[in-house]
Amino acid sequence: MMANRIYNFNAGPAALPVSVLEEIQASLLDFKGSGMSITEVSHRSKWFDDVINDADERMRRLLGLDDRFHVLFLQGGASMQFCMIPMNFLAGNGSADYVNTGTWSTKAIKEAQIQEKTIHVVASSEDRNFSFIPKGIDFHADAVYAHITSNNTIKGTQWAEFPDTKGVPLIADMSSDILSRPFDVNRFGLFYAGAQKNMGPAGVCVVVIRDDFLKMVPDNLPTMLKYTTFAAKKSMFNTPPCFAVYTVQLVLKWLEETIGGLENMEQINRKKAGLLYQTIDESDFYQGTAQADSRSLMNVTFRLPSEDLEKEFVQEALAHKLGGLKGHRSVGGCRASIYNPTTMEAVETLCDFMKDFEKRNG
Amino acid sequence: MMANRIYNFNAGPAALPVSVLEEIQASLLDFKGSGMSITEVSHRSKWFDDVINDADERMRRLLGLDDRFHVLFLQGGASMQFCMIPMNFLAGNGSADYVNTGTWSTKAIKEAQIQEKTIHVVASSEDRNFSFIPKGIDFHADAVYAHITSNNTIKGTQWAEFPDTKGVPLIADMSSDILSRPFDVNRFGLFYAGAQKNMGPAGVCVVVIRDDFLKMVPDNLPTMLKYTTFAAKKSMFNTPPCFAVYTVQLVLKWLEETIGGLENMEQINRKKAGLLYQTIDESDFYQGTAQADSRSLMNVTFRLPSEDLEKEFVQEALAHKLGGLKGHRSVGGCRASIYNPTTMEAVETLCDFMKDFEKRNG
Repeated sequence: MMANRIYNFNAGPAALPVSVLEEIQASLLDFKGSGMSITEVSHRSKWFDDVINDADERMRRLLGLDDRFHVLFLQGGASMQFCMIPMNFLAGNGSADYVNTGTWSTKAIKEAQIQEKTIHVVASSEDRNFSFIPKGIDFHADAVYAHITSNNTIKGTQWAEFPDTKGVPLIADMSSDILSRPFDVNRFGLFYAGAQKNMGPAGVCVVVIRDDFLKMVPDNLPTMLKYTTFAAKKSMFNTPPCFAVYTVQLVLKWLEETIGGLENMEQINRKKAGLLYQTIDESDFYQGTAQADSRSLMNVTFRLPSEDLEKEFVQEALAHKLGGLKGHRSVGGCRASIYNPTTMEAVETLCDFMKDFEKRNG
Repeated sequence: MMANRIYNFNAGPAALPVSVLEEIQASLLDFKGSGMSITEVSHRSKWFDDVINDADERMRRLLGLDDRFHVLFLQGGASMQFCMIPMNFLAGNGSADYVNTGTWSTKAIKEAQIQEKTIHVVASSEDRNFSFIPKGIDFHADAVYAHITSNNTIKGTQWAEFPDTKGVPLIADMSSDILSRPFDVNRFGLFYAGAQKNMGPAGVCVVVIRDDFLKMVPDNLPTMLKYTTFAAKKSMFNTPPCFAVYTVQLVLKWLEETIGGLENMEQINRKKAGLLYQTIDESDFYQGTAQADSRSLMNVTFRLPSEDLEKEFVQEALAHKLGGLKGHRSVGGCRASIYNPTTMEAVETLCDFMKDFEKRNG
């Protein structure tokens, strides 16, 4: 690790590959010989066209998207999608199914309800503090879509396999695990992810939408709230968040060229999470909060014997250059977010620290 | 000028102060000793709190905003505001007045109409190709607001003085001239500006909203489309576009500490535009397209005797390191955008080139 850097376990905005940051830094005053910064070139220039087209192509290759799918770069984060999804796909009499697995699912459900759309919460893990992913869910065969949150950042749970919806197209908020593993895109009508966890900085949300879902969008919505607007203009109806798109492009390049694709990325992610959960399970001092079969490979949540010890743990870790280990303000405890850019070295250093901290305080 | 940089006359995204870019570059891997990039720190951290609070305070000082005004950092650009404004303030039976001075006004009007709100286009310069700013407009005394576009990027016109609305609160799209001159904020219920022209990179839109306008916002709108959501959470309902906010903060700092405030900025802007219009007016070769009393201090639009010469002018200028001089694709011709960060040196170099080009081709 570089002398002036820390091991960053932030939940988002989160760590980025150092090589990506270095490339941004090196070209910040003169992007590709343009004599301008990436923040100063026109979004209608060849320079930016190359950036957004390359990001699009890499996303397609990494995820295995065919021509039915459109990759959109939108603003407003996943939160804006919570409102756009029911607005775009439940304009008629249709209804949708939602699975509630935590804070973000709850917000998605609320935004459909605010618009007085017909939705069914077909399963929830709220009764056990969202510590597990529900199984054996009965979806409504006539649902327009079934909405899930693929990974739950705050509670540290993740769908190991996506649910069998009996043919109902899935829509997923993948903000915290997109590109962390391969998956079958064909079951999805749409999936979306705020970039600031696995693939870039805050300020851009990637939406992948299938042709048949685009066809459902009514004409009479406000222009900026229709997916068709952005699909027709390749995300350039108005000025896109150029710097954020550029950073995503570099992260995708790193994923393809340095990591070698999503199979490799999943292997690395499994090793990182495996070591961390092993450290927790081999100790009586640390206690994982998620049910074993629902554990997230991205956000490892755990408790210490007391809140005082948790506070001390977080502070002492930071003194050892291990940052971002405090749990979400709504639940407390500790959390290590280990998204794609987090290195094995970072996880090993954390596990060593955890063992040492236990020895001294256990 | 630095050897690897050009003089950038882009209409947006546009030039930024070199000192701002250098500060971003220097701290890109270690922001303020955090051991993280500004793109990697949590938006709930003290590091980012300091950034957004400083941006807020500087904006207040520069614009002379009192406690009635809230400064919001939103996503989606000015285009999202076109839809949010009627959605938030025309939910009841009220109507609004709009003045149509070009492409962006037209879009704002369209978004109100899509939502079937009652609006009146009380004046338009469309009959003369938007080459002037209408005068002596009769506003409706009962209008909830009167919407104007303070500067028209594409047509090169600007309101020299804001219209007398007889007490109706103004709402203005100031995307292309915010912070370029002082103005009386008290007449405004709301004003907004995409950052990528006068104050930062693409990816953040600054909205200044007054208390009495916040009170009009209905409860039952989608959360991300209500101004009250962002006012209540100081722009942090969800993750804001951190890097873009940070860059805006540095530009505001530059405006206060290097330029010395908006009075000074206006003087510099008047000198820059003055020299450019003088160069145009003293020649029979170059022809300004905006009516003299409506000329913009930000976007100077002009024609050459033929389209071939215009093409040659733009290409040759670039070879002389003068970039971004092509007019908007919808109108053709030439345009020099000279926002706050564009230096007097850049304008002088452009004027010298223009005179030389005329000598050789006139």
